[in-house]
Amino acid sequence: MKKHNFYAGPSILPDYTIENTIEALKDFAGMGLSLLEISHRSKQFVAVVDEAVALFKELLQIPEGYSVIFLGGGASLQFCMIPYNLLGKKAAYLNTGEWATKAIKEAKMFGEVSVVGSSEDKNFNYIPRGYEIPADADYFHITTNNTIYGTEILEDLDSPVPLVADMSSDIFSRPIDISKYAIIYGGAQKNLAPAGVTFVIIKNDILGKVERSIPTMLKYSTHISKESMFNTPPVLPIFAALQTLKWLKNMGGVAEMEKINIRKASLLYDEIERNSLFKATIPAKEDRSRMNVCFVMNEGFEQFEKEFNDFATEHGMIGLKGHRSVGGFRASLYNAMPYESVEALVAVMQKFENLKK
Amino acid sequence: MKKHNFYAGPSILPDYTIENTIEALKDFAGMGLSLLEISHRSKQFVAVVDEAVALFKELLQIPEGYSVIFLGGGASLQFCMIPYNLLGKKAAYLNTGEWATKAIKEAKMFGEVSVVGSSEDKNFNYIPRGYEIPADADYFHITTNNTIYGTEILEDLDSPVPLVADMSSDIFSRPIDISKYAIIYGGAQKNLAPAGVTFVIIKNDILGKVERSIPTMLKYSTHISKESMFNTPPVLPIFAALQTLKWLKNMGGVAEMEKINIRKASLLYDEIERNSLFKATIPAKEDRSRMNVCFVMNEGFEQFEKEFNDFATEHGMIGLKGHRSVGGFRASLYNAMPYESVEALVAVMQKFENLKK
Repeated sequence: MKKHNFYAGPSILPDYTIENTIEALKDFAGMGLSLLEISHRSKQFVAVVDEAVALFKELLQIPEGYSVIFLGGGASLQFCMIPYNLLGKKAAYLNTGEWATKAIKEAKMFGEVSVVGSSEDKNFNYIPRGYEIPADADYFHITTNNTIYGTEILEDLDSPVPLVADMSSDIFSRPIDISKYAIIYGGAQKNLAPAGVTFVIIKNDILGKVERSIPTMLKYSTHISKESMFNTPPVLPIFAALQTLKWLKNMGGVAEMEKINIRKASLLYDEIERNSLFKATIPAKEDRSRMNVCFVMNEGFEQFEKEFNDFATEHGMIGLKGHRSVGGFRASLYNAMPYESVEALVAVMQKFENLKK
Repeated sequence: MKKHNFYAGPSILPDYTIENTIEALKDFAGMGLSLLEISHRSKQFVAVVDEAVALFKELLQIPEGYSVIFLGGGASLQFCMIPYNLLGKKAAYLNTGEWATKAIKEAKMFGEVSVVGSSEDKNFNYIPRGYEIPADADYFHITTNNTIYGTEILEDLDSPVPLVADMSSDIFSRPIDISKYAIIYGGAQKNLAPAGVTFVIIKNDILGKVERSIPTMLKYSTHISKESMFNTPPVLPIFAALQTLKWLKNMGGVAEMEKINIRKASLLYDEIERNSLFKATIPAKEDRSRMNVCFVMNEGFEQFEKEFNDFATEHGMIGLKGHRSVGGFRASLYNAMPYESVEALVAVMQKFENLKK
């Protein structure tokens, strides 16, 4: 039976990425060796990194003056690298969920942190608005998509201070005005690659302004000056990222991808609204994530939660169980998720509704 | 033509590892999904991590009281994590090459560093002996195998203070008396896995003795308490590491592997001694690495360096060029390198000698 992969991350990747990675594991670039066992300094792999950086810049229309680097350690390591490199005296953070909360915790080790807005009062089920960003902050940090709670900041915010965004789970899902950001970073294991690589898009002139000494590996300038080759980078995840970038370009780029993502998310949210058994966890439509659609059993149908989960699993749906902080269900609709898989999920929801009528 | 992979790292892996990883990219654990797109919290992948930890403990006979964790970021990130977690006032380091030098540089940001011995005076072509380790040091750090220069510490040293060892390039190449060490760490991309995962074997009671606040991701206790699942770990490299551990067990374990490694290294060093065209760069036989055999053209034959490199390449030898700090050639003979490949290299050296006679 066809499986539909709704995991929140690591998550579905394009067949193109998986197939090309399998081929490279058999023979990388005609070298007669597996991708798993080639030097990162071989000219064939250096070309992979160069092409991945070039496609990042092309697909996101990254202006001059920005660097793109690939690191290990995950977005969680960025939670301390950001303040290590940027926080002189004070930073502003928006608290929209668990990952934002973790980023705030790390920043507090390096200086004053002003949490300018938070949706913690309602279990992070909305995006705060109308807050003020202190003009004397070194930067303002946001998490654009909140994987666990299913909210998303769908516009490029105006900030009076350098804007830093964790886009782990929505990078490449829509066009972004990069010039509004100082740093965009993210773990690659949603819209880009298998787990193990973190991308950082960084405006070069934001660096070098703090006084503290920074361990070499935690200093962005180390990796920028060595073009992600200061130490051995995660070779396979970078290769796979390049395949996804090529696929994305073939699909028409981020503008085209946004249209598909809107169609997929609308299809599912509309069904949740229509279906008497379910309800969305995010009340305000404009705050609903296109990447992670969270829903629970409607009032009066709570007792069917486990049954629906089993029913969906039997129909080939994988990874639908919601995060324990929210409960219910979470359907992650990343770029690689086909429209047909969302249709299949909707059909299962309708079939289950008919059973319970 | 059969390729012989002499890369220093990322480097040759067992066919078993590569083939099983390819199969898992097609369908992981019968889930109907690729290893590249499964949740790290799926029970199937949690089982992979558990089995990898268990095999680490079994193959290295790790005593009670130690943890094994898998991290991202490379051994280079450990260069700052070690002092972050362990350096209260003073640490002792042995300087045996470029990686040791980098580790020393990071430690100096956290406290006093006593370099108790160094072979820098002779371009790191020997292992220092007869040094004294200060009894008031928080730990003593060594690099057991020096990939670039081709020296290796082949015994488990006695240290009056906790011993910390970077074993990136010789872990699993011989039995180790783990009880003599407080921490053993390494990038996995030599004897274990593709690039992207770092292992740390850590004596639990060594932690919690420094006063400073440590960023969450840089704190060993974070990863120990979450069994390498605090954040998304590098899924594929950990899966591949498990395959290599299984292969190693099938091969008879580290004691058997040491015998094979001694045979391989002896075969090549003996040929270098015999062959009039070449000479080893490490004079003392007891300091010569079994993992990285470094050699240069003999006096009077320097002009043939490029020609031999091309000749070897034409005969299927890959990655033989020495590091720029040493020049000449470096044949890396990691666990996965078959004896037959060393024989093939020796045959090429003899053929080249006959051409020049």
